[in-house]
Amino acid sequence: MPNKHTIGHFIDGELISGGERAQDVYNPATGAVERRVALADKTTVEAAIASAHRAFPAWRNTPPLKRARVMSKLKQLLEQHAEHICQLITNEHGKVLSDAMGELQRGIENVEYASYAPELLKGEHSRNVGPAIDSWSEFQPLGVAAGITPFNFPAMVPLWMWPLAVACGNTFVLKPSERDPSSTLFIAQLAFEAGLPPGVLNVVNGDKEAVDTLLSDPRVQAVSFVGSTPVAEYVYATGSAHGKRVQALGGAKNHAVVMPDADIGNAVNALMGAAFGSCGERCMAVPLMVAVGDATAEAVIAGLKAQIATMKVGPGTAAGVDMGPLVTRQHFDKVSGYVAQGVSEGALLLVDGRGVAVEPGCEDGYYLGPCLFDHVKPGMKIYQEEIFGPVLGVVRVQTLQQAMDLIDAHEYGNGTCIFTRDGEAARYFSDHIQVGMVGINVPLPVPVAYHSFGGWKRSLFGDLGAYGPDGVRFYTRRKTITQRWPASGVQEKAVFNFPSNQ
Amino acid sequence: MPNKHTIGHFIDGELISGGERAQDVYNPATGAVERRVALADKTTVEAAIASAHRAFPAWRNTPPLKRARVMSKLKQLLEQHAEHICQLITNEHGKVLSDAMGELQRGIENVEYASYAPELLKGEHSRNVGPAIDSWSEFQPLGVAAGITPFNFPAMVPLWMWPLAVACGNTFVLKPSERDPSSTLFIAQLAFEAGLPPGVLNVVNGDKEAVDTLLSDPRVQAVSFVGSTPVAEYVYATGSAHGKRVQALGGAKNHAVVMPDADIGNAVNALMGAAFGSCGERCMAVPLMVAVGDATAEAVIAGLKAQIATMKVGPGTAAGVDMGPLVTRQHFDKVSGYVAQGVSEGALLLVDGRGVAVEPGCEDGYYLGPCLFDHVKPGMKIYQEEIFGPVLGVVRVQTLQQAMDLIDAHEYGNGTCIFTRDGEAARYFSDHIQVGMVGINVPLPVPVAYHSFGGWKRSLFGDLGAYGPDGVRFYTRRKTITQRWPASGVQEKAVFNFPSNQ
Amino acid sequence: MPNKHTIGHFIDGELISGGERAQDVYNPATGAVERRVALADKTTVEAAIASAHRAFPAWRNTPPLKRARVMSKLKQLLEQHAEHICQLITNEHGKVLSDAMGELQRGIENVEYASYAPELLKGEHSRNVGPAIDSWSEFQPLGVAAGITPFNFPAMVPLWMWPLAVACGNTFVLKPSERDPSSTLFIAQLAFEAGLPPGVLNVVNGDKEAVDTLLSDPRVQAVSFVGSTPVAEYVYATGSAHGKRVQALGGAKNHAVVMPDADIGNAVNALMGAAFGSCGERCMAVPLMVAVGDATAEAVIAGLKAQIATMKVGPGTAAGVDMGPLVTRQHFDKVSGYVAQGVSEGALLLVDGRGVAVEPGCEDGYYLGPCLFDHVKPGMKIYQEEIFGPVLGVVRVQTLQQAMDLIDAHEYGNGTCIFTRDGEAARYFSDHIQVGMVGINVPLPVPVAYHSFGGWKRSLFGDLGAYGPDGVRFYTRRKTITQRWPASGVQEKAVFNFPSNQ
Amino acid sequence: MPNKHTIGHFIDGELISGGERAQDVYNPATGAVERRVALADKTTVEAAIASAHRAFPAWRNTPPLKRARVMSKLKQLLEQHAEHICQLITNEHGKVLSDAMGELQRGIENVEYASYAPELLKGEHSRNVGPAIDSWSEFQPLGVAAGITPFNFPAMVPLWMWPLAVACGNTFVLKPSERDPSSTLFIAQLAFEAGLPPGVLNVVNGDKEAVDTLLSDPRVQAVSFVGSTPVAEYVYATGSAHGKRVQALGGAKNHAVVMPDADIGNAVNALMGAAFGSCGERCMAVPLMVAVGDATAEAVIAGLKAQIATMKVGPGTAAGVDMGPLVTRQHFDKVSGYVAQGVSEGALLLVDGRGVAVEPGCEDGYYLGPCLFDHVKPGMKIYQEEIFGPVLGVVRVQTLQQAMDLIDAHEYGNGTCIFTRDGEAARYFSDHIQVGMVGINVPLPVPVAYHSFGGWKRSLFGDLGAYGPDGVRFYTRRKTITQRWPASGVQEKAVFNFPSNQ
Repeated sequence: MPNKHTIGHFIDGELISGGERAQDVYNPATGAVERRVALADKTTVEAAIASAHRAFPAWRNTPPLKRARVMSKLKQLLEQHAEHICQLITNEHGKVLSDAMGELQRGIENVEYASYAPELLKGEHSRNVGPAIDSWSEFQPLGVAAGITPFNFPAMVPLWMWPLAVACGNTFVLKPSERDPSSTLFIAQLAFEAGLPPGVLNVVNGDKEAVDTLLSDPRVQAVSFVGSTPVAEYVYATGSAHGKRVQALGGAKNHAVVMPDADIGNAVNALMGAAFGSCGERCMAVPLMVAVGDATAEAVIAGLKAQIATMKVGPGTAAGVDMGPLVTRQHFDKVSGYVAQGVSEGALLLVDGRGVAVEPGCEDGYYLGPCLFDHVKPGMKIYQEEIFGPVLGVVRVQTLQQAMDLIDAHEYGNGTCIFTRDGEAARYFSDHIQVGMVGINVPLPVPVAYHSFGGWKRSLFGDLGAYGPDGVRFYTRRKTITQRWPASGVQEKAVFNFPSNQ
Repeated sequence: MPNKHTIGHFIDGELISGGERAQDVYNPATGAVERRVALADKTTVEAAIASAHRAFPAWRNTPPLKRARVMSKLKQLLEQHAEHICQLITNEHGKVLSDAMGELQRGIENVEYASYAPELLKGEHSRNVGPAIDSWSEFQPLGVAAGITPFNFPAMVPLWMWPLAVACGNTFVLKPSERDPSSTLFIAQLAFEAGLPPGVLNVVNGDKEAVDTLLSDPRVQAVSFVGSTPVAEYVYATGSAHGKRVQALGGAKNHAVVMPDADIGNAVNALMGAAFGSCGERCMAVPLMVAVGDATAEAVIAGLKAQIATMKVGPGTAAGVDMGPLVTRQHFDKVSGYVAQGVSEGALLLVDGRGVAVEPGCEDGYYLGPCLFDHVKPGMKIYQEEIFGPVLGVVRVQTLQQAMDLIDAHEYGNGTCIFTRDGEAARYFSDHIQVGMVGINVPLPVPVAYHSFGGWKRSLFGDLGAYGPDGVRFYTRRKTITQRWPASGVQEKAVFNFPSNQ
Repeated sequence: MPNKHTIGHFIDGELISGGERAQDVYNPATGAVERRVALADKTTVEAAIASAHRAFPAWRNTPPLKRARVMSKLKQLLEQHAEHICQLITNEHGKVLSDAMGELQRGIENVEYASYAPELLKGEHSRNVGPAIDSWSEFQPLGVAAGITPFNFPAMVPLWMWPLAVACGNTFVLKPSERDPSSTLFIAQLAFEAGLPPGVLNVVNGDKEAVDTLLSDPRVQAVSFVGSTPVAEYVYATGSAHGKRVQALGGAKNHAVVMPDADIGNAVNALMGAAFGSCGERCMAVPLMVAVGDATAEAVIAGLKAQIATMKVGPGTAAGVDMGPLVTRQHFDKVSGYVAQGVSEGALLLVDGRGVAVEPGCEDGYYLGPCLFDHVKPGMKIYQEEIFGPVLGVVRVQTLQQAMDLIDAHEYGNGTCIFTRDGEAARYFSDHIQVGMVGINVPLPVPVAYHSFGGWKRSLFGDLGAYGPDGVRFYTRRKTITQRWPASGVQEKAVFNFPSNQ
Repeated sequence: MPNKHTIGHFIDGELISGGERAQDVYNPATGAVERRVALADKTTVEAAIASAHRAFPAWRNTPPLKRARVMSKLKQLLEQHAEHICQLITNEHGKVLSDAMGELQRGIENVEYASYAPELLKGEHSRNVGPAIDSWSEFQPLGVAAGITPFNFPAMVPLWMWPLAVACGNTFVLKPSERDPSSTLFIAQLAFEAGLPPGVLNVVNGDKEAVDTLLSDPRVQAVSFVGSTPVAEYVYATGSAHGKRVQALGGAKNHAVVMPDADIGNAVNALMGAAFGSCGERCMAVPLMVAVGDATAEAVIAGLKAQIATMKVGPGTAAGVDMGPLVTRQHFDKVSGYVAQGVSEGALLLVDGRGVAVEPGCEDGYYLGPCLFDHVKPGMKIYQEEIFGPVLGVVRVQTLQQAMDLIDAHEYGNGTCIFTRDGEAARYFSDHIQVGMVGINVPLPVPVAYHSFGGWKRSLFGDLGAYGPDGVRFYTRRKTITQRWPASGVQEKAVFNFPSNQ
């Protein structure tokens, strides 16, 4: 496919090619190859790191207000170019355009938060920690930070990372997903239009060679990762062993609990979007519904079946389409395999989305219709593993405590939610559940940009979450200064003891 | 030495023995074996972890105010028993009694800070993150946390860790140094007298077997470590690979810069304490003085020599003694070896503390007098490595920038200080130096308990410092809750798009 | 009554008499005069102010940690002397001993919060607000602050004020209620035992002459007041006109809303304590219950009547007594008059506490039994005015919105609460109600010491609430420092334009 | 002058006329009447208040993020229209264009800070303040707020107030100075273009009648004022007496201390701008230089005289002009009178700016050249009173302490600064001086927008400063919610005691 344009890298303020290897980028709606993407070799990644390293001293000395203003300007440019960015997302990822817009808006909110940098970087000042001794803390940038991001949110997840990192005074090397690199790269170019100096943000497309270079180069101080749990674990262990600070966000299997007193209509609507939006390719998707009581299960299932029947599957650019294709042929095969597995494990397949009909011209797209299982049980693979597809399983329990025990026993602890009208149930659930992000009648409790994103258990490796206040802390190093000025003419004796504030 | 008392462990609120192995504990002032300490085997450590694990659910549900009040009460008890605790410290560590008291006071300040828990644990609340949607964050305890602490501050460093951890709602397993375990164990018992329920704090004495058990047991959620850099690195990599959050504080080689305009008398006094206090066995000690200008070097050296001449070395319990013995025979040999090495590397040994005379009865103690080198240079082992003894080296440079380049090139970045009267020099130094704790005319810039302790570069592995605000963040997990109540009679449609706050 | 002891003042660390006037202090349980209290004249108050003024410079220079430690020590002393303090309270105020203990505990919590001073006084530090320009804020003490406190919480309300004020570095003059001065004065003396230097806290007993002196003396920088709304308004206007910062907390008429879905049994229990505890002499008492729906009204009334029938009224020191006497004969007459007024206004008096029988020896005490009105309506005096007695009125409405409209139309906005199980009702109520302190199934939503107390509308004059974070802000002045050091050899040109951070 | 355009008001989203009275607006560079401005009568102001009152409920329910985004958009529009705004400022105020730009930039920074609203409005959340009881605080808007602003910063000072007030959810009525109303009104219109709904911001031009209406109308909850101290005092007392929260910023007489070790060249440059920029019509101007030592005085005076000799005075729109005219004929006469007064009081007039020559066409402008006095002494009117003109007085002292005593004895405490290289002098000065805003080698220490502006003593009435964190607190009311959900089947007994957290 020699005529296809090959996407390169963005290093030192310039678009460049780099690396001898490249791979195809597909349109999942049609299965056609749209373009190719270069895969950076070690030398190319090192050039990006070197650029970031050179840019750091001047950028860290730039007042936070000025850095923040680049983010304000970027926000404007993202709003201006939103339609084009969403086209790029849908073209390579497959999600429907309005969903791409939702993703982009969330990303813009993170840029907005980064523009608060002067407020966010305030340290703590204490006069008289001892007689005539003052002390204060500062949050200084680290140097070069790196981000490695997944295919499912090519605009949003990178925007969780580098805007805040650079607003804090760091410089950055981003390695986005090689499946859908175009929107990410376009946004990076906008950042330079907004005023980012060359080298402050670099983008390298690539695969494991690029990742390993970032994880081992001593100039890289910090690594943020979002992806699957096995890779997150590898990134965390490898980066940590190289002395870097690492935050690695992994997989999820989010349970939605529906209580008997819930507003069933709202719960059904919420679940439809949470289970099938973006084909379930979200780490905050809801692939499991835990019904408390069989009557609850029946009511919710009836509602889901009715709504599924009206869903429209097709290319993300078509009007009225609710759900687009899966991201790749391989992923389509994998998700389809889970559906078969669920049946053979004994779950009851109420709605089978395999073989969904699509419009002419899309026969080679990676379409899987919504699938609904009842009687899913712990121990089944479709219960334990992250499917990342439009497959919703219903689990039946008799009490809230049983629902909570299930959730707490699962290896993942990213998000969860409860549908209820009852204050006590909501409070008990949110207090005790071993999950980092909890929704009360909110199906996708993704924290807003001025709070932080972070799962518990094997959904996050590291001690600080992504973006928000945790992001600021992750991208800065605390420095504490203790100051005393010698009073003229006053001379102290040597003190051999450990100084306390007596 | 069969008659000696053997110190055991403190598990589930009871003093117990445990493990078949034990080793001697010496009085460094005399070289005599004072008692023995049991070395916990894996089973014993697991019993401690199990106790902490059982105690967690009730303790995390105890209101923070009540947990904080145990800390207030402990503070009172520590003040009441201060003299006894300092006797235990000096008896096993060797430092002079007044220095032990300084250490204990700093530890008490950390207990005091932990007693602020209700204030420290406040989360962030946002009304209307979207229409009628609220969101807030909480800082919930992790579960079982572990601490591994060094010999040089047997009272203070444990008190950096577990009081804050338990005030945050965690339960704890502490493995203190097996060299000087008595004061640590005594303090733990006071915590129970203050009201800590059984299992909330457990102490196991031990060695690598105990450490490895703590690093690998899945019930342990977090590990705080203070010790040498190679072990810190091992602890960080091993604990991280087991999915725990880890903060590992390692070695140091703190440089004090003396500027030509400094108040030389004060600088000399400050350096005497910082270099020779507690025999230099502090990670915030100052083993290197960088003089800017030869005149500065001469003036400071003259002052140091005069003061060294008046120093009294002897047992830490004797009146008027400025410096006690080193902690062990092995460490004495190691430090003495560095002195010889310095001479052979070409540094000029101005004062030789080897063979220092001590009072009768102390001939077998591990005494090394103060040593002073001039013309120490980068590349020499006595410049590069952490000696942890009473050895001060003078490095000569001509400009502040040269001094700063030296510091930034060193692998450690724990503490540093500058002596000057000039605001601009102090500001430039504190802004740009690649060190986590900076003193301006303060030789040991250990942050007060309500700020946080943390070095940079290879002095700290992890992203959060010890105690203070960073300690609170380390010992808690962020949970973010997003809440919306369905309005009666209002029904929303399914939304397949990613929710943004539009 | 010439033989009675006369209580004086506490000035400059000494108990002194002062002023020629004095008045009787009664035991409301018996009506007997227990002692007399001196009423300070202007000269005496000025002596107290002068003492505080002299003590200020040294105290503001004392490190916050040391100031905080006096508060820790005071907390211990208060706990040790709790029983004696409660005896003093009950003897002069009349409330039952266990209620006095509740009051004192809340006061101790405020002392505890004041002991967090080093954390609470942290300012904000910003490096590089412009190129090489730093800026930070500090919260410095004001100087002499004054407090004027009411009879109903002689221990707690003073402890809302001066511990935090002095922990922030101020010195203080307290004028407590002349009705029950003994516990207040005793606690002040404990503060000196805890380590407060002379002059840092002064207590003057007195009346309007003392108040006016405090409001007009130019050395007094700030005044905190708690009392009735007319006096609060006078204090606020007078103090403000003299250029002081003033916070003046006034009256209340707190409504409790009971929803049809509430747990009626719990609501009844909660209302009993909130309406009749301490004879209703609390600004957070609940004198009005708003039932949503007649069935709710009937159910709650039935429960209240049953419980009232079992209540025991008598001297606060007697075992098993639920409610003691009112504070004075005059107040007894005033509250009794409100009961008569309610009947004549057409409200239905279901339970009449007038003429309640008490044990022998107490016939001259100021006892009024619990009173319960149904069909209380806006416009009635017993609806509009603060009665401050054991009189609960039931108002009937049909919807939550009607209940909220009533509350919002009332001149006071101190506290309110709602009893419900429904998350949406609770959220709507707490978001929109024009009241400063809101309880959800909590009848007396007095914020804990680490939050702040403050009503809205005519319940508070000023912009900052009492104690907690608002208290810290009230008792400190912000100072903002902007710092730049001239770089040697670099000379800037004059700039006539207003400096912006460009 | 019937043909001149008359500027009206901006109410409910519309430009309207209102009130029968009007007055002339002059161009101070020429003395010509440029236009007229309507003076609102009571009815007109009440219409503005009513509009704000109507707009409040919907605006307070608008999520903070959306309100913040209007501020982001406004920032863009201000940048786009900056040149036009500065023309309006210079045309009516007289300051040079580049100075108008400096003012506008500072104003834009306040708009920027207001755009951080989602971060700034976070409340504090506490889980388990008691067993299963949670509590949190919120910062809710007040309702209608009002601002009254002075002539000297027609763009900046209004932007200190209303952007933050409306970002916090309030609606606003602004009464700007009637001397230079055009830029203020233009900016208000931009706010609507940016998306502010009608009624959220209203502007009324007027005089005392308008002010008094704002101070007494019960719908106005809060008033921010900037102006002279006598009016500030009136506004504070009157507004407070009507139960409003008020912050009233008054006059200043800022002293700059020059130490013998200062960089004299930089100090002179700094003083030139601080004394003569904007003709000294700034509350942060430096009209007094306190020289420590006569040699310092001589050196600074020599520098000042040399620079004054090169200053160019003329219309603010002309190229190369350093200083424009005073704002009005009356003010010109008043300032000129102070110069004569200084001479008669015995101060030495080194440079006399009276009768300064200006370019043709400007003969009727209000020009006064720079004036420099030596030997100014406390007690002289030119020392005590705020001149608000281009008059710099030199005071000579021998020690830093004498300089500080002078400053502390003055009735104003707005700003001050010290020029020195010495850390100890700077620290001692900034810690102890009784002034709210302190510069260290910074002549105009106006805090940046993310800190707060506020003088001490008679420069500010109220307890919270303008803009920044204090501004957020001023424009919000704390609401504290305490929540407990009844556990099904668990019934508590009535508790008559005051609830403590035991």
